Amino acid sequence: MAKVAALWLRNVLRVLYQRRNVTRAQILEATGLNPASVSLALKALLDSGVILKVGALQSNGGRRREVLNLNAEAAYFVAVDLEGTRIRFALTNLFGDIQYRSGVDLEFGQAIEISTILAGIQSVVQQLDDAQRSRVLAVGISHPGFVDRRGRITAVNLDWRDFPLLEALRESLEVPVFLESAHRTCILVERWLGAAQGSDNCMYIIVGNGIGVGVFTDGHLLKGRAGAAGELGHIMIDPAAPDICRCGKRGCIEAVASCPNIVRQYQARTGGESARVSGNRVTEVFERARQGEPAAIEVLDRVGKYLGLAFSYLANLFSPEVMVVGGDLVHGQDLMLPRIRAELEKCALTRSLAGLELKVSSLGLDIGVKGAAALAFRQSLAQPALLKKMCTPFAVAVPRAQKRPRHRKIVPGRG
Amino acid sequence: MAKVAALWLRNVLRVLYQRRNVTRAQILEATGLNPASVSLALKALLDSGVILKVGALQSNGGRRREVLNLNAEAAYFVAVDLEGTRIRFALTNLFGDIQYRSGVDLEFGQAIEISTILAGIQSVVQQLDDAQRSRVLAVGISHPGFVDRRGRITAVNLDWRDFPLLEALRESLEVPVFLESAHRTCILVERWLGAAQGSDNCMYIIVGNGIGVGVFTDGHLLKGRAGAAGELGHIMIDPAAPDICRCGKRGCIEAVASCPNIVRQYQARTGGESARVSGNRVTEVFERARQGEPAAIEVLDRVGKYLGLAFSYLANLFSPEVMVVGGDLVHGQDLMLPRIRAELEKCALTRSLAGLELKVSSLGLDIGVKGAAALAFRQSLAQPALLKKMCTPFAVAVPRAQKRPRHRKIVPGRG
Repeated sequence: MAKVAALWLRNVLRVLYQRRNVTRAQILEATGLNPASVSLALKALLDSGVILKVGALQSNGGRRREVLNLNAEAAYFVAVDLEGTRIRFALTNLFGDIQYRSGVDLEFGQAIEISTILAGIQSVVQQLDDAQRSRVLAVGISHPGFVDRRGRITAVNLDWRDFPLLEALRESLEVPVFLESAHRTCILVERWLGAAQGSDNCMYIIVGNGIGVGVFTDGHLLKGRAGAAGELGHIMIDPAAPDICRCGKRGCIEAVASCPNIVRQYQARTGGESARVSGNRVTEVFERARQGEPAAIEVLDRVGKYLGLAFSYLANLFSPEVMVVGGDLVHGQDLMLPRIRAELEKCALTRSLAGLELKVSSLGLDIGVKGAAALAFRQSLAQPALLKKMCTPFAVAVPRAQKRPRHRKIVPGRG
Repeated sequence: MAKVAALWLRNVLRVLYQRRNVTRAQILEATGLNPASVSLALKALLDSGVILKVGALQSNGGRRREVLNLNAEAAYFVAVDLEGTRIRFALTNLFGDIQYRSGVDLEFGQAIEISTILAGIQSVVQQLDDAQRSRVLAVGISHPGFVDRRGRITAVNLDWRDFPLLEALRESLEVPVFLESAHRTCILVERWLGAAQGSDNCMYIIVGNGIGVGVFTDGHLLKGRAGAAGELGHIMIDPAAPDICRCGKRGCIEAVASCPNIVRQYQARTGGESARVSGNRVTEVFERARQGEPAAIEVLDRVGKYLGLAFSYLANLFSPEVMVVGGDLVHGQDLMLPRIRAELEKCALTRSLAGLELKVSSLGLDIGVKGAAALAFRQSLAQPALLKKMCTPFAVAVPRAQKRPRHRKIVPGRG
């Protein structure tokens, strides 16, 4: 291992992470590394059991080309999805498969306690045996709102302002914690396992309680200064619109097209009570529109028009191959997709539309935790200490295993 | 050289390209390479004369830390800027300094002949002696419009449709040719030498005959599928606006705010002749506004409002540190910058504005050729054959002692 550069291991593992089942030749091509470097890296990874030979291709010349893949059990990640009304916890393997899960329901707007998050992490980690627990690399967290440089989250939807999540978790956990906003964790996993698989130019547009976009351009995840890129929700789609946004301005796309604002407009048209609304109630508006109710149809027409216009801006500016729509809006995909697509095609440059696919997320309710696991995996590859831990040989023989220090608990938990 | 991986050379040269005057420790940190790899790469580059020791820093411990820089004359690039009415040719060194230049004026809309471009390239290359000429690495071309996968340019402004520029030049030239759209070559050079120097999150917004944006996010140059990203000009900033765009749609920002359209609106208001207008005439509209003419002021108010709104979209989506404005609009920067800034601040998310600078390009008329040179340099680093050529030892028969010029200065400033 000593002579194998971290860079080689990282680049080889990145290819296996994204593509799986690849030959040495494919790894060479994708990494651009020297053949000698790739051979050393593959030997180290095979010796330690982090990757496995899973088959072979027979070429015409008669030479067997071995097919390699990750060993799914070489590392585990704890994944946490902080939603508005539910926290989901999962333990995943290196493939992002969920091994164990748990969850906590919250009242809308109820503050989340750190102890709740720690207990949830504990609940999934304790399903592992000691040997497995020593291979838990990191905790990934998908959160709403945005995070500042000190790991404090502000999420207006959750009534969090400068919530010091990262600091509190780091104090209590022995493994590293990584945070990322939900629109970015979602495009990470859509590109890894979902509707944008393998695409280098793709985006995930979440339309739920808020609106945001996570973008890959040329294989690069867009973050921007202070990680603040992707604030689609607050582009002022129509300065003349009367809709007032939570940000204090008028005419933001979120003020028109987020799920609570779809409900609000429907209620305003029908004289319904303007009680506090959650995104879930948007399914009722969709149902009324399916039944042909004019007020519901009018609202969805307006929302589709503005969303399509906003999507056309994204198409022109980023030139993506795949735009994936997620969030509670997908409950009305039969109604919304045709409306969005029609407006997108009307407003975007013809050249931006050629080869562009508009899709709906297919990962369902697990997208948040799977995205958090994708985040934890990517970040672990980038950190030398975690990369080293991932590449630790499996302790197969019992006597050897007993010589090694035992990790009793990865997550001691204070609360 | 044989044992020095191209990857190491490339990464070391990239750091020197962007930062200049760096120590070995700084190169180590910026590249993330092994110390041994960096040492091998530096030795090869120093031996071949591609980089030079230009001074030393004395640290407290008494150990001298040598300061390294590129040898400006280690490679030359031919840079071509295809504008609407003028083609500029330049020969630059590795620092982007222009050594020779020439140019050809065109009538607006006049077709450009390949022979004209070849003659211009010839005119600057023949200024070099034979030894220098062997170090010309590549031709970089900054072009309007867009290029397809086969190197054919379509630029409505120049009346080019599928103009097979790349193919024609490749047939006639012995060095590689690289093409890039003007908005991207401009941000390349603004980040290298200009108003966005060293920024990882910056953009260049060209407002001239057309409107486009070149973007760096997290140090990555945005290209998108088929290199078509950055089509700011055709975002439909106001679907209700009457302005018809060349793309056939209404309400594109280009239809409202490009320089010819500023002139058009002014003429429509004043009943002036609606003859074919070039971007240059926009300076007259700016002058009338400075003299207080209401029609000119009304037009600029409208243009500033829409540009500011479009800029707010960019600020929210990309979260840049620096937005650089270029193109003929800068002739009216005294009028337009305050208008754009006011609207930007009104429309963008407060968080997107914090730490954002709005600047005007400072590179003047040379921005196109300097951008083309930046393109040629970057692309040469990426190509193994050109990297090898760049690292060819100088064929100078001088005694060993004289081979490395001694520089006694401590970190000299750039020339």
